[in-house]
Amino acid sequence: MSENAAPIFDDGFRAKLETLIRWRRDVRRFKPDPVPPGLLEDLLSLAALAPSVGLSQPWRFVSVDDPERRAAVRRNFEAANAEALAACRDERKTLYARLKLAGLDEAPCHLALFAEPSPAQGHGLGRLTMPETVAYSAVMAAHTLWLTARAFGIGVGWVSILDPSAIAATLEAPSSWRFIGYFCLGYPQAEDDTPDLERRGWERRQAGAAPLLRR
Amino acid sequence: MSENAAPIFDDGFRAKLETLIRWRRDVRRFKPDPVPPGLLEDLLSLAALAPSVGLSQPWRFVSVDDPERRAAVRRNFEAANAEALAACRDERKTLYARLKLAGLDEAPCHLALFAEPSPAQGHGLGRLTMPETVAYSAVMAAHTLWLTARAFGIGVGWVSILDPSAIAATLEAPSSWRFIGYFCLGYPQAEDDTPDLERRGWERRQAGAAPLLRR
Repeated sequence: MSENAAPIFDDGFRAKLETLIRWRRDVRRFKPDPVPPGLLEDLLSLAALAPSVGLSQPWRFVSVDDPERRAAVRRNFEAANAEALAACRDERKTLYARLKLAGLDEAPCHLALFAEPSPAQGHGLGRLTMPETVAYSAVMAAHTLWLTARAFGIGVGWVSILDPSAIAATLEAPSSWRFIGYFCLGYPQAEDDTPDLERRGWERRQAGAAPLLRR
Repeated sequence: MSENAAPIFDDGFRAKLETLIRWRRDVRRFKPDPVPPGLLEDLLSLAALAPSVGLSQPWRFVSVDDPERRAAVRRNFEAANAEALAACRDERKTLYARLKLAGLDEAPCHLALFAEPSPAQGHGLGRLTMPETVAYSAVMAAHTLWLTARAFGIGVGWVSILDPSAIAATLEAPSSWRFIGYFCLGYPQAEDDTPDLERRGWERRQAGAAPLLRR
């Protein structure tokens, strides 16, 4: 048992937390200003407090700094995005082509995230019937980083239009690691409480509560 | 562009957010008190603001209220947990058997979470090369619900020691849905800033920042 008293969360905090969630955004337009020294480490410390199956902490981050590797990631995205454009229904191709779906050129900080599928930590607890919970744990670390980054004014964009195996090769990731996502971080050019895909006419967010069946 | 001014998050909010993240916990011991009327809907409204690939909002929640279905979920857990105990290394079997890994008997509120793998919403954007991002989106909705529930004093426990296909059958979920996780919600018997698995000697959380390679 911790010696610290359990914290109290009040209405003021809950309102601000809701504001954070409402204003998070997937950011694809960044200012060139760097992420302040030490802040990435602070965010990674908070990410390490995310839930993980069996307390396995299977998240593995890679900071991508080398210009040649960044260029390879950019080419990877361009190829996957061209493929996605080709797969678009005809009436949506023009709209798709106009979207900006990654901030790879401008973002000062690039993070790749992998999961270790068979971590020794946790002794396998909780994942025998659902091994995908290892990947889910890494996703919750990413989401923790995303929310906390926004609280520091830093925007995050998740790039998923990528060939995962080529990313792993580009980054010389250990062979067991599974690629989860690629993240661009930096100060956003603008802030908004409406998703970019909605403002640009691609899709509308459904208002209200998430769908709920009763059984 | 929204007409609302972009919010400012200050040091006080960031400190409280860190406290929330530190005290979240995977809860397996619940008081019998019900979740207040309307609160689940509020939490599901916040969950619906989670990031989702292509703005597809592919999360599908199921509130499990029927006693017979709850009993079937309980039997599912017991069978999967017995299998996990049998798979444990000998020197850890006694410790494993002592752990309480679900609060299915006491939790007043049971939620199952599924993902719709091919949602019409979002028009397929962002998931051509990584279809697993649909499941990842549902995980971020669950994590949003988890954090915001804790801000209301409600504990959440993620039960993953289950046979997913049997859960889908028990809940008569639409055949396309993919099971993500089963969640127990209620007021926790105790609060702590140290994970239960650590306090009971199963595993120790690694302190400090999440692992970071540089490339």
